[in-house]
Amino acid sequence: MTDILINKLQRENDSYKIIVNAMILTMDSDYSFWKCGSILIKNDRIVALGDISISREDFPDAEVIDGTGKLVMPGLVNTHTHVPMTIFRGYADDLPLHEWLYEYIFPVESEFINAESVTLGTTLAMAEMLRSGTTTFNDMYYFVDEIAQVVDQTGLRAVLSESVIGFPAPNSPTPNDSLRKSEGLIKKWGSHPRITISFSAHAPYSCSGSLIQKTKSFADKYNVPFNIHVAETKKEFDESLVKTGYTPVGYLNSLGVLDSNVIAAHGVHLTPDDISILKERGVSVAHNPECNMKLASGVAPVPQLLKSGVKVGFGTDGVASNNNLDLFEEMNTAAIIHKLNSNDPTVLDARTVVEMATIGGARVLGMENEIGSLEPGKKADLIMMNMSQPHAHPVYNIYSLLVYSLQGSDVETVIIDGEAVMLNKKFVHLEENGLYEEVEKIAQAIKDRSRELSRIK
Amino acid sequence: MTDILINKLQRENDSYKIIVNAMILTMDSDYSFWKCGSILIKNDRIVALGDISISREDFPDAEVIDGTGKLVMPGLVNTHTHVPMTIFRGYADDLPLHEWLYEYIFPVESEFINAESVTLGTTLAMAEMLRSGTTTFNDMYYFVDEIAQVVDQTGLRAVLSESVIGFPAPNSPTPNDSLRKSEGLIKKWGSHPRITISFSAHAPYSCSGSLIQKTKSFADKYNVPFNIHVAETKKEFDESLVKTGYTPVGYLNSLGVLDSNVIAAHGVHLTPDDISILKERGVSVAHNPECNMKLASGVAPVPQLLKSGVKVGFGTDGVASNNNLDLFEEMNTAAIIHKLNSNDPTVLDARTVVEMATIGGARVLGMENEIGSLEPGKKADLIMMNMSQPHAHPVYNIYSLLVYSLQGSDVETVIIDGEAVMLNKKFVHLEENGLYEEVEKIAQAIKDRSRELSRIK
Repeated sequence: MTDILINKLQRENDSYKIIVNAMILTMDSDYSFWKCGSILIKNDRIVALGDISISREDFPDAEVIDGTGKLVMPGLVNTHTHVPMTIFRGYADDLPLHEWLYEYIFPVESEFINAESVTLGTTLAMAEMLRSGTTTFNDMYYFVDEIAQVVDQTGLRAVLSESVIGFPAPNSPTPNDSLRKSEGLIKKWGSHPRITISFSAHAPYSCSGSLIQKTKSFADKYNVPFNIHVAETKKEFDESLVKTGYTPVGYLNSLGVLDSNVIAAHGVHLTPDDISILKERGVSVAHNPECNMKLASGVAPVPQLLKSGVKVGFGTDGVASNNNLDLFEEMNTAAIIHKLNSNDPTVLDARTVVEMATIGGARVLGMENEIGSLEPGKKADLIMMNMSQPHAHPVYNIYSLLVYSLQGSDVETVIIDGEAVMLNKKFVHLEENGLYEEVEKIAQAIKDRSRELSRIK
Repeated sequence: MTDILINKLQRENDSYKIIVNAMILTMDSDYSFWKCGSILIKNDRIVALGDISISREDFPDAEVIDGTGKLVMPGLVNTHTHVPMTIFRGYADDLPLHEWLYEYIFPVESEFINAESVTLGTTLAMAEMLRSGTTTFNDMYYFVDEIAQVVDQTGLRAVLSESVIGFPAPNSPTPNDSLRKSEGLIKKWGSHPRITISFSAHAPYSCSGSLIQKTKSFADKYNVPFNIHVAETKKEFDESLVKTGYTPVGYLNSLGVLDSNVIAAHGVHLTPDDISILKERGVSVAHNPECNMKLASGVAPVPQLLKSGVKVGFGTDGVASNNNLDLFEEMNTAAIIHKLNSNDPTVLDARTVVEMATIGGARVLGMENEIGSLEPGKKADLIMMNMSQPHAHPVYNIYSLLVYSLQGSDVETVIIDGEAVMLNKKFVHLEENGLYEEVEKIAQAIKDRSRELSRIK
């Protein structure tokens, strides 16, 4: 036991939490792990953790959380998603990509995506993310002000961006309008402790080169991430070669927009040269294995990316194509698909996968100094999982257990920015009552309209 | 509403259960589905279900289960597993197959598999299966009498077999001893309402041709299933060609052992001719997608098998290689891996996948007249899932929701043979108290011995 000395004089406005008797997985650079330890949280940050003795007398007003039978670890980081799309969960599955997108998703998006449905879909997404242990997510969609309001109220941490696209978006008639909107959002949300407003261009095939450059220049101006879908499908890759003479990555490189604030979503179809470019430019990749499999897009060369030193995190993509926001599923799927795809059961070992979902995801978002691991001085973004369950035993290897056996549903308590936002599966701020009924109402309207459209066709 | 007439005179010993207000997915041949319906269960069987009115006065002693906000569906069928191996969960992962099997699994099996550890591992497996909605499983391992006792006590339905193998097994010095043991088990358990004793030969490469033939003849004599691992790895396939001049399936066919009571586990490496043989002979395949991916064994040609009319169900395989017994994960993984592998997002649509996990699995076990769907006259083997959760909304398509969004952990209540064996996540018979501590004790002994062995090497 190491005694820690902490200033006994608590300032009146400081709030303390102490987690005791917990199994603690830190994901720090030493992979520190305690079978039974404590964590001291002051306001939004971790003060101390591990095999420490914390005198409760020193913190008489601290909230004490019993960690007996629980695993505490960093909250998971979702590096690519479109949260309002939860309202389309299961609307159109088992379809060819083009039919899915052009005959199902785009028509309902243009008709049903508005401030109200975005608020509702985002609320549903926040509920699902908290339940499955995600504490930070990186989103590109529309009506970001509405998304930000829900994030503010429900307690998650998010990097949010309006998706700039080369045709009228649901909330922006022109790309310039979208960019102006984003600047307004930066003014409004810029000082929020949990919200970062960033910039996104939809994809190389849906935005002109100059629009991509312009959007990127805004990201640089404000020193925030820049998101873009890149090389998701073979079709995109092949068409890029024909249209631009470059691979999608090569094309973006030729535009001069690739550097260390760029998050390339998907990166499925990459040449060795593309991987070198990504490494040289410091570009990060958001890997979405389940979505890529479900739409038969392919398998991103993640083992090669990691070997080259490219930063890779996990994304779920939107629920319309996944169909969930559960990063535990992505971890499991990634671990096994890359073994199969490489014909090598040693690639993407469990620890590497847990790293990608935590500190690796934080690196992708440029937030590795604040989140992604449990360390003194870092933000207190953590999850507590119930280990008193059949699939959680025995524990030979904690990483293996996390990747191959534990599930999002094992998460019971979530603390973000030092605040408990879910306690024993009960949401602290989010109102579950009536939520599902509201979601079903909008789904019914979409179904009715869909039937109408198919009658017209 | 259709009124149903049921003899009002309840015999004194009859027990009735009524599930009301539930969403009901039957998986019958019409894919009948009710958004709100009832189910009447008499003793071990379903009497009526659907949009029916059941007068509670007619069944004053019936147990009434409220299905509000729940989905009721057939319990899932696991067609291939080795349940005692739960004690090795996470013991050895991310390793090449040969090293995993020969340096880790075989040594600990020979040292730690005994009556006591099998009882413990099986109990843990029963807990995990109930929690994730499996009501029937097909097992091949050792110490089957001990497994049967746990199955008897915990309430699941099982097809159990001693695995005959061409070298001394943990509980049988010779294959003949194992076969004699199996005949004894048939005498002991033959009339059990939930247990079927069957026969298994481990694999074409680990048993002689005559041993396979002999074991199969026992299965024929007792008219029970015959299990065998077939064509799991490329290595097995290639070596079979060299040693026997046949593919693994062709070799078994040349032995004259392939017919409709045969369950071929894995079937990853199959030629078009192999698929024709399986179809002609009426052989079933137990598909284990997650295990096959994790060990980089390959992808079974399931779309082709289904197209040819071969019966295919899901298996989890043992926990040492999966690392869990959750069939919801297999459903999700199967749906997406075959899309990727076929480069076609329309293959293995969600309904087909749910079918494979329920009535399809029952067909593999030759039990389709008794289980696998909810129909009057069939056994009452069903699960109730909690739909009041973020990832369970909206409901556009119930199959899609089951495969891509719902999870094993959503299962709250399990009824098998008309008996509630899990109610609101509480086990009725199974004692959870102390179970995990016992499992950790044996894991600690395995870890200690492992360290010792690595010191010796």
